[in-house]
Amino acid sequence: MALIVQKFGGSSVANPECIRRVAQRIAEGYDAGNDMVVVVSAMGDTTDHLIALAKELNEKASLREMDMLLSTGEQQTTSLLAMTLNAMGYKAASFTGWQAGIYTEAVAGKAKIMRINPLRIEEKLKSKHIVIVAGFQGVTECGEITTLGRGGSDTTAVALASALNADFCEIFTDVDGVYTTDPRVVPEAHKIDRISYDEMLELATMGAGVLHPRCVELGKEFGTRIHVRSSFNHHEGTMVEALSAKMMEQQMAVSGVAFDRNVSKVSIFDIPDRPGSAARIFNMLAAHHVNVDMIIQAAQRRNENKISFTISSDDLPKTRELMEEMKWEFHAKETEYIDNIAKVSIVGAGMITNPGVAAKMFDILAQNEINIQMIATSEIKVSCAIKEKDLLKAVEALHRGFGLSVNHN
Amino acid sequence: MALIVQKFGGSSVANPECIRRVAQRIAEGYDAGNDMVVVVSAMGDTTDHLIALAKELNEKASLREMDMLLSTGEQQTTSLLAMTLNAMGYKAASFTGWQAGIYTEAVAGKAKIMRINPLRIEEKLKSKHIVIVAGFQGVTECGEITTLGRGGSDTTAVALASALNADFCEIFTDVDGVYTTDPRVVPEAHKIDRISYDEMLELATMGAGVLHPRCVELGKEFGTRIHVRSSFNHHEGTMVEALSAKMMEQQMAVSGVAFDRNVSKVSIFDIPDRPGSAARIFNMLAAHHVNVDMIIQAAQRRNENKISFTISSDDLPKTRELMEEMKWEFHAKETEYIDNIAKVSIVGAGMITNPGVAAKMFDILAQNEINIQMIATSEIKVSCAIKEKDLLKAVEALHRGFGLSVNHN
Repeated sequence: MALIVQKFGGSSVANPECIRRVAQRIAEGYDAGNDMVVVVSAMGDTTDHLIALAKELNEKASLREMDMLLSTGEQQTTSLLAMTLNAMGYKAASFTGWQAGIYTEAVAGKAKIMRINPLRIEEKLKSKHIVIVAGFQGVTECGEITTLGRGGSDTTAVALASALNADFCEIFTDVDGVYTTDPRVVPEAHKIDRISYDEMLELATMGAGVLHPRCVELGKEFGTRIHVRSSFNHHEGTMVEALSAKMMEQQMAVSGVAFDRNVSKVSIFDIPDRPGSAARIFNMLAAHHVNVDMIIQAAQRRNENKISFTISSDDLPKTRELMEEMKWEFHAKETEYIDNIAKVSIVGAGMITNPGVAAKMFDILAQNEINIQMIATSEIKVSCAIKEKDLLKAVEALHRGFGLSVNHN
Repeated sequence: MALIVQKFGGSSVANPECIRRVAQRIAEGYDAGNDMVVVVSAMGDTTDHLIALAKELNEKASLREMDMLLSTGEQQTTSLLAMTLNAMGYKAASFTGWQAGIYTEAVAGKAKIMRINPLRIEEKLKSKHIVIVAGFQGVTECGEITTLGRGGSDTTAVALASALNADFCEIFTDVDGVYTTDPRVVPEAHKIDRISYDEMLELATMGAGVLHPRCVELGKEFGTRIHVRSSFNHHEGTMVEALSAKMMEQQMAVSGVAFDRNVSKVSIFDIPDRPGSAARIFNMLAAHHVNVDMIIQAAQRRNENKISFTISSDDLPKTRELMEEMKWEFHAKETEYIDNIAKVSIVGAGMITNPGVAAKMFDILAQNEINIQMIATSEIKVSCAIKEKDLLKAVEALHRGFGLSVNHN
């Protein structure tokens, strides 16, 4: 008998039929003798509908009022799911975020969970209830309703699993788990059975992820195992967990190939080589909420540098505006903006003990006549910025080159 | 400068356009220098939509889960209204029932408000916010969300007005106020300017009411003046308040004529005249949630009685079943069920000091050849059960006979 926290997203509870299917799945876990805590999102397009209503009344509604509005969506799902389980003969009780004791910082719209007081949940578990909790929401110490921002329901689930000391947390999605790369791009991509938190984090932050980074971080912090699996079948999914040294050794050097098409590269030339120039630029960008990813600073000639960096293409117009100001401030001669850039990355905890992985990546790209524009590395990741037109070729070649196109399951 | 609590029902906030109109109305009060607390219901058919969803998943959903589900409707309206006021340049903050400190008894679906802790509302008023509170809902001491049942939002408004010591409570509806009788039946019916709590209670319990009895009782208990008025115009409505002896004297003996078409009369004959017979019958009916209105017990002959009573016609099938059991138990010879009965009532605080009002009522009915089947009286009300076909004639005659068909405004 285990304590399992499950999470079902909005598309899994989009209508009464979906809700009944989810209830069936929960009941299976309960019938197998487990204690069940279930986190749900708002039904299908409920949130979009509420946002549209709000926009009609106030284009720039305050985040506080948006949180009040949007948090109702998850609350509705919890009660509908609980009454469905009741109809099937199961004891079940729904809880809002504040009822579940989920306390957050006082930041509307994207609050972080600060602590969880799971007393009421534990009481209901003791009396053999299935507990349904509204995801994506919490409450401040002052009693203000907050929402957790993107990936919020996943975070609720992992945080609850940690607080309750659950055996594991099951995140149900519309895919079978975490893949070696996007199967829509490389048909040979296969599901990864087990992956470490750090690898998952690298994959998550690169847009390949089924999980939000915050929820993976939380899992890592508390050692909570996260099982990412499909709500449409009973196949084993991907277990995100702490891997032992032995497990790491048995792993492939590279676990997955991630990519991001939506990248732009910005360069500014002839920056005076004095302390603080780079700081000035990146502080300015940060102040305007532009997330910078890869950065290269190179000497152009004596006393003059060139700085290049990549950003999300969405931020390009704003960044262009800021950089033109900078150009003027630094008396720089030239700026350059390239938006048809993509990023390809190899991720693998095995890299740490396998030297030469980065060199092999550069080799594979060179063999395929793909020019590398920028390089960034971490302990378990190597990323290269390349031309967008080369992306597909690069992903396929790396996936094959690192032995991922053979199914190891 | 006053502190005003306003309440707008579901049809007043049915869509964004309606919400903007309500916001305009609130802003007028605020601009006039008043502190404003506003109670709102769920938008238009939101509640019906949620009930339909619930029914699809569980025909007999628990009241606890229904409360979790339905309370989201009002919460949505509060935030939408607050952001509309924000867009107009006003400071506004929305509160759920629990945030507003509305504590109820632990009865799902029809909880009574036990106490109100208006601290958070008062804080927001101090900082010149317009406070928007979700009607129809509260929270138990254990943190369970409850709803207040029918007329719940009116009750929230009057309870808040009482707790905040507001100058008065404005209930906005789709009519101009409380009328001397239904204007659709008697075109000469006119709006009553002022009415006492007790009269309003008598009118409310007889289905003529714009206000739920519980909310009138609360107003009476705390002496909170309730202004019932139209959300479509700025006319003065009806003020429900404690009337002084002098004001009572100036009033007409009869303030209004109420009626109810949906009445059935049940009689059981030849009941043995022994203690407990009547108690047995009415306990049985109460146990099956049949509300009995008028009762007559009359001796038929030595040792045998006849008992007649009226009920809502909706309860007739159930009552018939119960009475047939009773007939068998008492060896009674006969039962009778008549469903084309109506009740007409005259209500007026002035009755207490005006003898002969009841006699005048019987006189008017007799002159119009209307047979009285049963009579019930209270200090400020006389009701008669008559044939349904005579109802229209009776209401018109009484309205004219008691001088109500002349507009006194």
